Amino acid sequence: MSESGGFTTMAGARADREAPHVGIGMLGYAFMGKAHSNAFKKIPYMMYPPPAIPDLVAICGRNPDGVAEAAKRYGYKRYYTDWHELIADEEVAIFDNGAPNNAHMAPTIAAAEAGKHIFCEKPLGRSPEESKAMWDAATRAGVKHMVGFNYRFLPAIRLARELIESGKLGRIYHYRATYLQEWVLPHYHTPMTWRLEKDVAGCGALGDLGTHLIDLGRFLVGEVETVAAMTRIFTEHRPTADGKVGTVEIDDAFVASVGFANGAIGTLEATRFAAGRKNHEIVEVNGEFGSIEFDLERLNELNVYWVDSEPKTTQGFANVKVSEPSHPWWSNWWPQGHMIGWEHSFIHELTHFVDCVANDHEVSPYGATFEDGYRADCVSAAILESARTRRHVDVVY
Amino acid sequence: MSESGGFTTMAGARADREAPHVGIGMLGYAFMGKAHSNAFKKIPYMMYPPPAIPDLVAICGRNPDGVAEAAKRYGYKRYYTDWHELIADEEVAIFDNGAPNNAHMAPTIAAAEAGKHIFCEKPLGRSPEESKAMWDAATRAGVKHMVGFNYRFLPAIRLARELIESGKLGRIYHYRATYLQEWVLPHYHTPMTWRLEKDVAGCGALGDLGTHLIDLGRFLVGEVETVAAMTRIFTEHRPTADGKVGTVEIDDAFVASVGFANGAIGTLEATRFAAGRKNHEIVEVNGEFGSIEFDLERLNELNVYWVDSEPKTTQGFANVKVSEPSHPWWSNWWPQGHMIGWEHSFIHELTHFVDCVANDHEVSPYGATFEDGYRADCVSAAILESARTRRHVDVVY
Amino acid sequence: MSESGGFTTMAGARADREAPHVGIGMLGYAFMGKAHSNAFKKIPYMMYPPPAIPDLVAICGRNPDGVAEAAKRYGYKRYYTDWHELIADEEVAIFDNGAPNNAHMAPTIAAAEAGKHIFCEKPLGRSPEESKAMWDAATRAGVKHMVGFNYRFLPAIRLARELIESGKLGRIYHYRATYLQEWVLPHYHTPMTWRLEKDVAGCGALGDLGTHLIDLGRFLVGEVETVAAMTRIFTEHRPTADGKVGTVEIDDAFVASVGFANGAIGTLEATRFAAGRKNHEIVEVNGEFGSIEFDLERLNELNVYWVDSEPKTTQGFANVKVSEPSHPWWSNWWPQGHMIGWEHSFIHELTHFVDCVANDHEVSPYGATFEDGYRADCVSAAILESARTRRHVDVVY
Amino acid sequence: MSESGGFTTMAGARADREAPHVGIGMLGYAFMGKAHSNAFKKIPYMMYPPPAIPDLVAICGRNPDGVAEAAKRYGYKRYYTDWHELIADEEVAIFDNGAPNNAHMAPTIAAAEAGKHIFCEKPLGRSPEESKAMWDAATRAGVKHMVGFNYRFLPAIRLARELIESGKLGRIYHYRATYLQEWVLPHYHTPMTWRLEKDVAGCGALGDLGTHLIDLGRFLVGEVETVAAMTRIFTEHRPTADGKVGTVEIDDAFVASVGFANGAIGTLEATRFAAGRKNHEIVEVNGEFGSIEFDLERLNELNVYWVDSEPKTTQGFANVKVSEPSHPWWSNWWPQGHMIGWEHSFIHELTHFVDCVANDHEVSPYGATFEDGYRADCVSAAILESARTRRHVDVVY
Repeated sequence: MSESGGFTTMAGARADREAPHVGIGMLGYAFMGKAHSNAFKKIPYMMYPPPAIPDLVAICGRNPDGVAEAAKRYGYKRYYTDWHELIADEEVAIFDNGAPNNAHMAPTIAAAEAGKHIFCEKPLGRSPEESKAMWDAATRAGVKHMVGFNYRFLPAIRLARELIESGKLGRIYHYRATYLQEWVLPHYHTPMTWRLEKDVAGCGALGDLGTHLIDLGRFLVGEVETVAAMTRIFTEHRPTADGKVGTVEIDDAFVASVGFANGAIGTLEATRFAAGRKNHEIVEVNGEFGSIEFDLERLNELNVYWVDSEPKTTQGFANVKVSEPSHPWWSNWWPQGHMIGWEHSFIHELTHFVDCVANDHEVSPYGATFEDGYRADCVSAAILESARTRRHVDVVY
Repeated sequence: MSESGGFTTMAGARADREAPHVGIGMLGYAFMGKAHSNAFKKIPYMMYPPPAIPDLVAICGRNPDGVAEAAKRYGYKRYYTDWHELIADEEVAIFDNGAPNNAHMAPTIAAAEAGKHIFCEKPLGRSPEESKAMWDAATRAGVKHMVGFNYRFLPAIRLARELIESGKLGRIYHYRATYLQEWVLPHYHTPMTWRLEKDVAGCGALGDLGTHLIDLGRFLVGEVETVAAMTRIFTEHRPTADGKVGTVEIDDAFVASVGFANGAIGTLEATRFAAGRKNHEIVEVNGEFGSIEFDLERLNELNVYWVDSEPKTTQGFANVKVSEPSHPWWSNWWPQGHMIGWEHSFIHELTHFVDCVANDHEVSPYGATFEDGYRADCVSAAILESARTRRHVDVVY
Repeated sequence: MSESGGFTTMAGARADREAPHVGIGMLGYAFMGKAHSNAFKKIPYMMYPPPAIPDLVAICGRNPDGVAEAAKRYGYKRYYTDWHELIADEEVAIFDNGAPNNAHMAPTIAAAEAGKHIFCEKPLGRSPEESKAMWDAATRAGVKHMVGFNYRFLPAIRLARELIESGKLGRIYHYRATYLQEWVLPHYHTPMTWRLEKDVAGCGALGDLGTHLIDLGRFLVGEVETVAAMTRIFTEHRPTADGKVGTVEIDDAFVASVGFANGAIGTLEATRFAAGRKNHEIVEVNGEFGSIEFDLERLNELNVYWVDSEPKTTQGFANVKVSEPSHPWWSNWWPQGHMIGWEHSFIHELTHFVDCVANDHEVSPYGATFEDGYRADCVSAAILESARTRRHVDVVY
Repeated sequence: MSESGGFTTMAGARADREAPHVGIGMLGYAFMGKAHSNAFKKIPYMMYPPPAIPDLVAICGRNPDGVAEAAKRYGYKRYYTDWHELIADEEVAIFDNGAPNNAHMAPTIAAAEAGKHIFCEKPLGRSPEESKAMWDAATRAGVKHMVGFNYRFLPAIRLARELIESGKLGRIYHYRATYLQEWVLPHYHTPMTWRLEKDVAGCGALGDLGTHLIDLGRFLVGEVETVAAMTRIFTEHRPTADGKVGTVEIDDAFVASVGFANGAIGTLEATRFAAGRKNHEIVEVNGEFGSIEFDLERLNELNVYWVDSEPKTTQGFANVKVSEPSHPWWSNWWPQGHMIGWEHSFIHELTHFVDCVANDHEVSPYGATFEDGYRADCVSAAILESARTRRHVDVVY
């Protein structure tokens, strides 16, 4: 059964029955564990009436004290320090994988084999091979699967998708996306972290930030066909926690020229070396009849230009506050102009997934499936290959 | 015991003991009831470790079905349709008044007399007399009292206050504040609502929007001394729910010139007739050594100018993303640049109040007490008097 | 003969005849003398084909060396140190008065009596009485007269006027105008200048900056009916050129609530004490069907909101780059997006005046006549009276 | 003799002597002819005292009526329809080549051989070979030579250069530059023009817009080492003036990843298919200690971020109005905040060149020489080669 294009702003019709419950098993209790737990807790009373009610069954992490405190803090019934136990928990219907990248594959495949529906953070794998294995396992098991490309679930991005999908922008010429941060500038003396280790993270700014740009490009414009890219490691040596010096082997930054299957071209760039940029994700699309511009740090806004708007003398990019009842998900929140935040993307995203699981809807096309995760990883791999081989690389899916 | 200037980002020291619980009795379940309930529910796990844990004891409203559903939705143990019962509930330690303005005074005074601590939405009263009666009652009863001037609890506004309080702006010359909305434009055929009825609301855009500007002026600059104002009713007749025509007797908009006790001057303006303005509250302060500019629709930002910044050739208003761990309350939330929303002001605000109640801190100076509510209402009254008498009016407190 | 609403972008029809010449006599060679001379010099080849060609006949100033150099620099045929001689010059058809405010009245009246057409910088007089005398003299003499409210001649402001005039904004509810500068902040140790002397300047920020806001209010919204205002002198004592201490007797800043004859209300404010504001003139208008916002420091832009634009989901303030061939005066300049500057307002303004003089067009309604200058001064006088008497003052014209 | 880093804001010392005159011979009277003529005419009285006075000797174009009118309009003493005559004119000291790209090489080489100093519009040649021939000819002749990369002469860009050159940004990590226009969108039915013909223009958006980005990259960051690029022709067939259909053979748009010799990476992009973008040139630089952002449509502004600015809580991108007396060239113009326009870049640029010619200064490093023009064309050629061969291409100079 298809979601048929609506947001999960719950139809009144649903209020006459009790919402089904789905048990959540959460792997990880740090940044993503916090963001996801918060989302699950808000669904029942803010995405109201909820399509399903997430029951916080169990949370899992390696540090016993840490995970015990997290369970108490967020209200999980129990906790585990071994993810095998989490997956074995019979009350868990959804396995939510918020672990570091190197702990995405094995638990996810095991969860699929145990018949759990799976939500996994991005990037799905550290390589297309890992992603493919996860996608295959989920497909074989017949479970629902979704990747945490949460920006698809911002009202402004969803509005952009709908405008493009409806044909209002006409033929698409350009996609332009940058994701700039400053969190590992050398003078901050940032030591080695798992996000800088090749074995754990797989890739650097590309995997962490760039995959968002790739996914949004696929979501808004279409399939990426060719890439021509460069990467850089600006700071090769960093102190480690044990007082030694570690060598950074993954990208601090990348730039890429990209060609889409539909003829559009674009640029992609992500870096952690952009002084002053906190979480500066910019997405622009230029089409035949209009243009769109988005800035994650002003996530309640979308700038839109229409070639044919009247009167001609007042044409310009409209700074749309995406906060009207007619905007995606907005009726769940507050009156117009009473803005929402970054965390709300997770609430919308996980509402969609629990709805898909509990009411047998399709995750696609508005949610990213493991196939989408795999395809994003294929583009990432092509970018790394292009940088290494100094050639244009056609993406192989 | 004083809060001593810190935010309620909980000290590690507190983690070693169990947080005290405080019972919440909520009056109203519409817009404000939703915003407050959401805040209470997030305190325990997001303002972590919490200074106190709000227990959702009871919610009260006149419509039995509506309030029953609200109780279930937000997780209140029970509900009432008569506020006297809410106040009589022994488990209720904090009475939270989110009712329309004409239901502020009587329940609040009764709650004070019953020894409840009280949080009341703004404007405190429909007149200074009402506010004074509420303040007196709370003082007599020795209970904690706070008014819902929630914008004091936005990180950007708190930062502004700290910069000014520390003397970094020097002498203050100007305060400039506008609050523009478009929710009752005539072509929207907005019918009469309680916010347009004089008996219920007391005053119009002035009470609903203008009091925020007045409170922020007092919070940032100091006491208002003199006002010279005008008001307008642009649409006098509106349809009522029962098919008749109602007469609007309260202001659709006001403008005021104001003089502060410290010599600064300013302008205040609020309207519901500003096409395209969703929730456009702008606050500007110009001082001897710097300037500050704030826009509620971009609430994670503060524009700041320093006269003495170096190098001189790059002086300009800095667009500060108020989202660093060093910013007020931010460490409770997400990494830098991962923005929060309007609702978060309520979370900070109510965390402060439950902390004050549970741990005997002072609500002042960062929270607004009933005295602050009263003083804001005195300024409002002076504005109306100035508009009516066509004279400058010195505010009498 | 009327200008009939068009810009002075010269019709091709005019190219078939030689443009008439008009002799210019310029009083003053400092800031305004430079801006006007530059404008006159550009008219023949940039406002092409020109409606008339200004001949730079003579320039006048009190300092013989200074004025001699200015004459050489700008290409005036001769110079004078006594304005009586300038007016007596038979080649002078237009007397352009760019002198300080206390030298507006006497030379202007004498010029009118000598049959010269007159362009005078703003504010027209130091008082309504002075302005009235000048207006009367010009009317009696039957000469063309215009006041230098140059911002009427910015493409963005002219576009705003046309949108409002055409009825596209519907009924006007609000006018909001501020003019903020920082040029006399105390730490800049700004000494006394003629702009701070009551006898010379007449009034302070109000006369220098505020009259622009008043004129634009009258140009865009309509006649001002009532004002309620306050003024401030923040720095009373300043060093004089001769090493003494001068006392400032005119306003450093003013704020005013204003009521328009058509029912709109507004706020006006001007100051020289706004840290970081270089030339920050903001003008906003809210009407029934739309809103307009202008910032002088981004003078090529106008933000416009339409209540009825489609699709509803992308409504927002459009950031219009007023640089298309269809925009006022733009076809005289460069391709779209190749921006013009502040000085261009003078070129448009003086083109209009030489056109009016040479081809017998009306200065009104797009140019400001001495009547407009007088009416602006009446509003200024009412503002000062309101501040002094602490009453609302109805403007007497 | 070197210009030694100062702007050509004329030292008072120079006022005591008569400025030397240099005769100008202008080729072309359309867009660039207008912009250059305007600049020459303003130098004597606005860049005051001028380092040299341009005498408008002659203008040249193929259409006799057109060029005759242009000569009259701008005040050239005489006109020619054959550029050989222009070059043969003995009064011409500077040959200014504002012709289409296919008329850059031959006249320029001939002018050099005739001993004329040469200013040539960008791109210098249609290929590096053409540029090299022009550079060699100028070098052999010992004449001054400069290419019209006018954006180097905007105060904001010059400020950016000085900040970077002084080391204040530290090591440079990123350069990000886009130049977006919408002038040939298909629905505008733009017919073929010389800018779309391969033989005349050489290359499309790359040559017209992209070379500005390349030159600014070289000016601000350093030499480009490697490129990886793609190009697109979105509209292959366009109507011609004679009613036929022409085939577009040059790029409507390009994107490129670039590596700099100093280790920085970047992206370049130019297009004529960006709906709503009038003249949207954005330049960003991220360095170790700060970042810079520039937008040509707001050319009086530069956004600057400093990693070490104090206090930390108010760090942010400062929106610098580059309009203080301390800013490049500003003292020639108006008080702070009284903004200049696009045309002013030409005035500064040509002032520099006439100064270099008349007073024997070096065009480098602030002006772009023919060597700079050649090097920019080498990067362009590498971009086209990369797009064609689908490989990373190392730029060969």
